[in-house]
Amino acid sequence: MTTELYPRERLGLVRDAAAKAGLGAVLLTPGPDLRYVTGYDAKQLERLTCLVVPAGGEAFLVVPRLEIPAAEASPAGSLGVELVPWDETDDPYALVARRLPGGLVKNGGGTVGVADRMWAVMALRFRAAMPAAEQVAAGGVLRELRMRKSPAEVAALREAGAAIDRVHRQVPGILKAGRTEREVARDIADAITAEGHAQVDFVIVGAGPNGANPHAEPSDRVIRPGEPVVVDIGGTMPSGYCSDSTRNYCVGEPPAEYRAYFEVLEEAQRASCAAVRPGVTPEAVDAAARDIIAAAGHGEHFFHRTGHGIGLESHEDPYIVAGNLEPLEPGMAFSIEPGIYPGPHGARIEDIVVCTEDGYEPMNVTEHGLVVID
Amino acid sequence: MTTELYPRERLGLVRDAAAKAGLGAVLLTPGPDLRYVTGYDAKQLERLTCLVVPAGGEAFLVVPRLEIPAAEASPAGSLGVELVPWDETDDPYALVARRLPGGLVKNGGGTVGVADRMWAVMALRFRAAMPAAEQVAAGGVLRELRMRKSPAEVAALREAGAAIDRVHRQVPGILKAGRTEREVARDIADAITAEGHAQVDFVIVGAGPNGANPHAEPSDRVIRPGEPVVVDIGGTMPSGYCSDSTRNYCVGEPPAEYRAYFEVLEEAQRASCAAVRPGVTPEAVDAAARDIIAAAGHGEHFFHRTGHGIGLESHEDPYIVAGNLEPLEPGMAFSIEPGIYPGPHGARIEDIVVCTEDGYEPMNVTEHGLVVID
Repeated sequence: MTTELYPRERLGLVRDAAAKAGLGAVLLTPGPDLRYVTGYDAKQLERLTCLVVPAGGEAFLVVPRLEIPAAEASPAGSLGVELVPWDETDDPYALVARRLPGGLVKNGGGTVGVADRMWAVMALRFRAAMPAAEQVAAGGVLRELRMRKSPAEVAALREAGAAIDRVHRQVPGILKAGRTEREVARDIADAITAEGHAQVDFVIVGAGPNGANPHAEPSDRVIRPGEPVVVDIGGTMPSGYCSDSTRNYCVGEPPAEYRAYFEVLEEAQRASCAAVRPGVTPEAVDAAARDIIAAAGHGEHFFHRTGHGIGLESHEDPYIVAGNLEPLEPGMAFSIEPGIYPGPHGARIEDIVVCTEDGYEPMNVTEHGLVVID
Repeated sequence: MTTELYPRERLGLVRDAAAKAGLGAVLLTPGPDLRYVTGYDAKQLERLTCLVVPAGGEAFLVVPRLEIPAAEASPAGSLGVELVPWDETDDPYALVARRLPGGLVKNGGGTVGVADRMWAVMALRFRAAMPAAEQVAAGGVLRELRMRKSPAEVAALREAGAAIDRVHRQVPGILKAGRTEREVARDIADAITAEGHAQVDFVIVGAGPNGANPHAEPSDRVIRPGEPVVVDIGGTMPSGYCSDSTRNYCVGEPPAEYRAYFEVLEEAQRASCAAVRPGVTPEAVDAAARDIIAAAGHGEHFFHRTGHGIGLESHEDPYIVAGNLEPLEPGMAFSIEPGIYPGPHGARIEDIVVCTEDGYEPMNVTEHGLVVID
């Protein structure tokens, strides 16, 4: 088993999976799919960069001539994949079509997989250049690979989890009564970078009623004593892998009714984690938390799914939501983040966990309880 | 004339333009088009947010229920557009299809414009939900509006230009012999934020041979005395509008041959700016710089287009490139950035300019000459 984060074998796995799915070719523009397959963290620009993986031929990487040095310096440069440069007045879509089997381009009726995050304008240009090819989302093929993390990927998620845990441990020194959510969020963002992330993906600091809005933007609200604060933070590491963890803080003692439902939430989050093991469905993991919250009378105050997959994207498959009946497997990585939002405050506890052979491994290990700040 | 950056009238202009272009509806997911039309700087997430503008009806904004507070708090919340929430287990694509005229969905043969930057996976889901509708890039309609900046947009670009100019003025204090490109780039990135940008978009610090690669990534190369350094930097302001400017620095005196071609470059960049006025083609603006560089024997050392439009995106229409024959008009905003890259060093001078009634207004006004640092 390879120990590399971006092993060379992936390209072959994608080609095999594409062939098995009946795709004539897969077209990957910059984004998580391209990075997964080649390690190349290319910028998404208006000039087309595209890895073309024909089911029956050699892959090639179409690159604007300006980006050739970057492509060569990236892991893609040592994959043995031909780099095909194009110049400012060339048509790179026609260039791709010319190099693909004729059936995909004319009267063939083949199928081409396009990266899920490809810009629609690029997919439409490919359609014009290859009018006979039916386009489908390449994610159908890629997700099967990306959803099951390798040991090296789990190690990268562990590293990301440890980094965001170090940020949470600093929050009691940052969050003070009298500061605004925005001020606290700015300092937390700095800590996310200082603790090793390459990029801050999101910082939610929701005080009082804003804690009852799961996707609140940090505002100029001044944090008051006794006001619970939801802190949901994440970033992307230089490896490309993401962190995401939510903890709850209060300057001084929170209201008694908050303590009461927070205990329910802790129990629900624990139960949901404990439900994770191979063969269990995401729907069941969701229900494990939801049932406890509903039984305590807070069903209507938990109005989002329990979690989302994580890896090269903050949100990816598998989603931990009612209706997802695809059984968990070892290596699947996702958040467990139930919440209770009755207002005038709310709470959410979130860990990233990885499904193991017989249960789960948490990527986040800071205290789950309410952190009371003096 | 409105003085607002995101005036309410835009929605009507888009509807009219869509109808004129024969589109039955326009579908705008988060990104620059949605922000242009509504002011809503929505996050691009896997949950669908989409402004639907039917050519013959009222626009509505489909929003995940979790994002309703953010949508309401945004400028979109006061546009008088219906917000249509959807829940975690709903199918938002079917929801959109149900609310559109039947012809677009079944046996109609209508045409739907999708945002250029919509994720392909979303465009494909819309296709499945509306199989009779032909999809085209909405950019064909939006570019006609976005390409001609309003006075408020020009003011936002001026503000962005002033902010990046302030960063360039700090570079002599940051760039020192003995520091690495990466260290210098990090300090410049901090200055970009400190000078008022909401986001750093790119920082190129190309020393010596790296200056001959127009899209070099900052490396661990130590900057040496006498080595020319290309500094190309930009960010996005809280307004949503972007900055982008390139200047050239050297610790001590550069080689004589560098001085020689740098003078050619200065002349070429001035000539290209001077060519800007209504009615002139981008091709001619490109040629104004290219001809001077070629006449000096450096034609092969200038291998990229002369510029790109700028606004809510760093790179947008109009592109200043051979083959673009669409005459300039007042309000068009773009970069003028010829370069000469003979190696073992290179240079590029870049300003953002706005086409006026009788010429151009520069958004960047720092010295264009080589900045020699003691």
